[in-house]
Order: sequence, then structure tokens, then C-alpha cells
Amino acid sequence: MKDILKPLAVALALAFAGSAQAAGPAGNEPIQPIKAAKASDPALVELGKKLFFEPRLSRSGFISCNSCHNLSMGGTDNLKSSIGHNWQKGPINAPTVLNASFNVAQFWDGRANTLKDQAGGPIANPGEMAFTHELAVEVLSSIPAYKAEFRQVFKSERLTIEEVTKAIAAFEETLVTPNSRFDQWLLGKKDALNKDELAGYQLFKTSGCTACHNGPAVGGNSFQKMGVVAPYKASSPAEGRVAVTGKDADRFSFKVPTLRNVELTYPYFHDGEAATLTQAVDTMGRLQLGRTFSSTENAQIVSFLKTLTGEQPKLTLPILPPSTDATPRPQPF
Amino acid sequence: MKDILKPLAVALALAFAGSAQAAGPAGNEPIQPIKAAKASDPALVELGKKLFFEPRLSRSGFISCNSCHNLSMGGTDNLKSSIGHNWQKGPINAPTVLNASFNVAQFWDGRANTLKDQAGGPIANPGEMAFTHELAVEVLSSIPAYKAEFRQVFKSERLTIEEVTKAIAAFEETLVTPNSRFDQWLLGKKDALNKDELAGYQLFKTSGCTACHNGPAVGGNSFQKMGVVAPYKASSPAEGRVAVTGKDADRFSFKVPTLRNVELTYPYFHDGEAATLTQAVDTMGRLQLGRTFSSTENAQIVSFLKTLTGEQPKLTLPILPPSTDATPRPQPF
Repeated sequence: MKDILKPLAVALALAFAGSAQAAGPAGNEPIQPIKAAKASDPALVELGKKLFFEPRLSRSGFISCNSCHNLSMGGTDNLKSSIGHNWQKGPINAPTVLNASFNVAQFWDGRANTLKDQAGGPIANPGEMAFTHELAVEVLSSIPAYKAEFRQVFKSERLTIEEVTKAIAAFEETLVTPNSRFDQWLLGKKDALNKDELAGYQLFKTSGCTACHNGPAVGGNSFQKMGVVAPYKASSPAEGRVAVTGKDADRFSFKVPTLRNVELTYPYFHDGEAATLTQAVDTMGRLQLGRTFSSTENAQIVSFLKTLTGEQPKLTLPILPPSTDATPRPQPF
Repeated sequence: MKDILKPLAVALALAFAGSAQAAGPAGNEPIQPIKAAKASDPALVELGKKLFFEPRLSRSGFISCNSCHNLSMGGTDNLKSSIGHNWQKGPINAPTVLNASFNVAQFWDGRANTLKDQAGGPIANPGEMAFTHELAVEVLSSIPAYKAEFRQVFKSERLTIEEVTKAIAAFEETLVTPNSRFDQWLLGKKDALNKDELAGYQLFKTSGCTACHNGPAVGGNSFQKMGVVAPYKASSPAEGRVAVTGKDADRFSFKVPTLRNVELTYPYFHDGEAATLTQAVDTMGRLQLGRTFSSTENAQIVSFLKTLTGEQPKLTLPILPPSTDATPRPQPF
């Protein structure tokens, strides 16, 4: 049955990969080098960095964006599902924030069109930061140093959730990881990859992985069904894209994750059930491509994937302005 | 009764302040400028910084030293009591890690003599990081990049909790905050403080605050009873120093906290029940000195205390090496 379905699976995958670029500028490869971001407004980015690290955007005063999108750890928390307010178990694996600006949409189901739209979600999600936009703005507005910084950045007295999420998104747009060994190879440094890594990349292409994992982010640019050849038995109740479109055909369709820095962003899949790259490659081969990779093939693909680790953002830890007597206090318990 | 006890209270406080320097090099002041730390072993400090930000030292993979001693927020979490594994409520307010090397001992009850001894505590505390030293070492040992860094730093193959806590302590020793406006004033810049701040400092001295809050860290160098003139009704069950000495006289005796960066380290007292500096100054005056400060006096002391905010450590966020297939996975739930 697998053999019969295999061509169909690849055909389907190709058909879905609407925005895929099959031939890129770098030697007609399906993957293109990722370019460092240019911060057009450094003051806005700096404010966004503070807010990204700001636990007072949560009800507890303990959880910040960086708690689950930890920039020391590939922009994720390396947990199957995240820990939210009151130690609630999240329903889905936290995607990396690194290179998220390359995503066609945000969240696994793409329910936010932009990074700005995404940023407001966790703040008000009762299972995550468990705050409200109103209270988050009240906290920030009570702190003169924040008020002054918003005024300087936005040239206005407005401090609403719009300015907050705009600043966070501007910071996140800078979180691009260029200069991976694979990008060096793409750009002509032919000894940047060893024989196994090159063999892994060939397999990655010829097996059909690049049907979905392509472009500068090696993914992130389409939604695909999880379980094309055989159904995926998820431990998460999430049903994917159908929650946004309402179309039954989109059930268990999820945004294809970027494979940039995939060595750092374990565990894998929307339910985080693949603990290792070996396991993830095996499952993808069987369920999406109808192909069982030999252990040698698997190891070669894994070695290729590890060449996608780029330069991590070099950030100075922000110093957050203190609360004042007027600042509402956190309610952790 | 307050008036009768007041001289006794001050005398007691002075008697306890064994290591206090009543006259410092800077114009015979009871407070001395704090000096920036010199890192004698930068590689050890850099390793310690990684470990300080390392959530894999916790059972959940979510809590690091920086979670409760947040270096973006004055080295504390700004919560009454900290959030531990499984959202447990801690029994006591997290003291700041900034300038902690000046403390006579670590923890509110001084049960750890050194920063190194302290560092191992929260890792294995079931209410905090809820891990074990053995598992923490197993995690680190499974990561080749850590193995190599320990080998390079310690010139040996040993990777035990001893090396882990030694590195964390070495990093913490660098977390000193020099060049506050008050230090500038101490060092001769006479316009560094305004009239109210100077009046506040005079009151701070003449009221007896400096009997305990003295030296370079403006505290941290003695244990004192909380509630000298009148008992302190704590919301925390902690009984202080008696837990270490077994002496009934040490019941409700706590390490005097440093007042360096006190503007950033709210809320105050071992139970975190004073939300603001105004409240803390009022309570200290009444319960420790038998003195009710007028609102003008209180405001002057508060304005002086805010001049103790020093330069915060400027840190590049560490990038942590990824787990390998052999690394034990976190158990958050």
C-alpha cells in the first residue's frame, strides 16, 4: 500500500506547496540562503526586545515571550508542550520565533497573519500568560520609563496593545539566523559540507522533503496535512488549519515548520512527540512520503539538517524599568 | 513604650552589627562605594553564566537561576514569593543576586556560607527547581559542548555538582553594580545628590538605619531580629536564623538585606509584604527603630534609597548548547 500511495503523496505535497520556489538563485537549489535582517527602526526594535523579555505582560509577572521562545535555546522551550499560567500544560508545541518572519502565517494553524497579530495572542490566552491586553497596557502605562520610550518611538502619547505588539513584532523580525554552514555551501563554499551532509541533502531533495521544506526558511511557507500516506496519531488534540478555515479538508493540516536551526528546536511536530531528529526523519519519511529510510540514510539526512544551524542572535540582555507604586502588582497565585 | 525601647533597639542593632565599618574611606561615611568585580577567570565566568541561564538544571526544563533572580529585573523576580516547580508557592521572598558576594552568608537565614554552597540549593529543592544534583550532572554530561567547556575551564574530566556550583558562583561574583549616584557622591561628586536625597541620607544615618544597613552593600553583613521594638506579623512561616543555629534567640532573626538597587528589588522583607519603598521605610521605622517617619521624612529617605541604583550588569544572552539524543528529557508534568 505504501508503494502505491507514494507517488500520490509526493504529488499532493507538490500540489500544496503553492508558494514554493523549486529553483532558487543559488545554483537552482530549492533552498535559498537566509539573509540577516536589517532593523529599519533600532529604537522600535530595542523597545520590542524589552517587551519580549517582559514578564509583567503576564498575570503572574513570571512568564514573558522569552519563557517559551527562549532565545538561549533556539527560540523555543524544548518542551513537548509549553508551561502556561498556573503550570497549565499547553495544547501544542511552541514553534521557534527564529526566522518566524518568513512564515506564511503565525501559529501552527496560521490563525495570525502577521507577527504583530501573533504577539497579542499569548498575552491574553488564559492557558499561557493569562493576562488581558487592557491590564498589560495599564502596567506599562504606569511606568514612566516605558511611557517615555513609547513616546519617543511612536512620536505620540498612544500606548495601546497596538504599539506593544508592533514593537514586539519589530524585534522578532530581527531574529534571523544567517550564515549556517549550509548557506555557506549554497553561496559557493564547497567544502562547507562534508560527504555525509551532502549525501543527506541529496536524499532530502530526491525523497521529496523539499516539496514542503523549501525556500529561505526551509519550510514555513505552506500548510500541509500531517499524515499523508498514513495517519499520524497525535498526542495533541489540535486539529490544525480547519480551526481557521472551517474546511474539513484542512483537518490535521498544519503549517510546515521551518527547519532552520532544527538541531536546536527539539522536540518535533505540533505535539512534540518526536524527541530526536532521527525519530522525526523516520516518521516524516513513513507518514508523508511512504518511505522507510535506512539507518544510514536517516543519519545522512540528520547530518544535513544539522548544517542548517545559523548564527544565533547576539543580544544584550535588556534591563527593564522598575514598577512604580502605581503599577498593578502581579497575581501569580 | 516605643520611646522607652528606642535607645535599646538602636543599641542592640549596633551591638549586632559586628562587621560594620562605622567610618569608611569616603569621608567617614558608614556606607562605602561598591567596586566593580574583576573576573579573574573569564572562561569560568562565561560557563557560569550559561549555567545561570540553564533551565535544564530543573526537573521541568523551564526554571533556571535567572527565573527567580532575573538579571533584567534587579536580580530578583519582583514577586512576594517565588514560583517553583509545578507552580508551587515559595515560602520566602527571593533575595537579589546582585552584589550577593558581599553578603556575610547566603539565604535569608544564612544557611549557606558561600555563593557556591547556595547555588546547589534551589536545584535540588523540591519546591524550586525540583531536580537532583545527580540528574543535573547527567544532563550536562550528555552534552558534548558542555563537556568540552568544563574540561577547558577545569583542566580535568571531572563534571560534578562541585564544578557546576563553582562556575555559577564565579559568574555571580561578577554581578556587582557600581557607580550609583550615591557612590558618585561618596567619591566626591557633590552635585550627584539633590537636597531631598541628601536630607534622606542624613535621616537614614541619624535615625539609626545605618546601624544595620552599612558597608559597601548597605546591608548584607549581619543578622538582625525582624521586629525589635514591636513584633513583625509575617505572612511567611519562616523563622529565620534559628533554623541554622537552633538558638531560640535567633528566632525571627534574618540577614539584613542589601539596599543596593533597592528601587528594583521590590517587594520588600522576607515575606515580600511591603509592596513599596514608602511602606518598607514606614515599617522599618516603627518596628526596628520605634520611630514614625513623617511623610516628608519618609519621602526623603525613599529618594535617598533610589540613589543606590547602580549600573546593572551588561550581559550578552548566552546561547546554550543543544541536548543530544542521549540527554535525559525534562519532566515538566
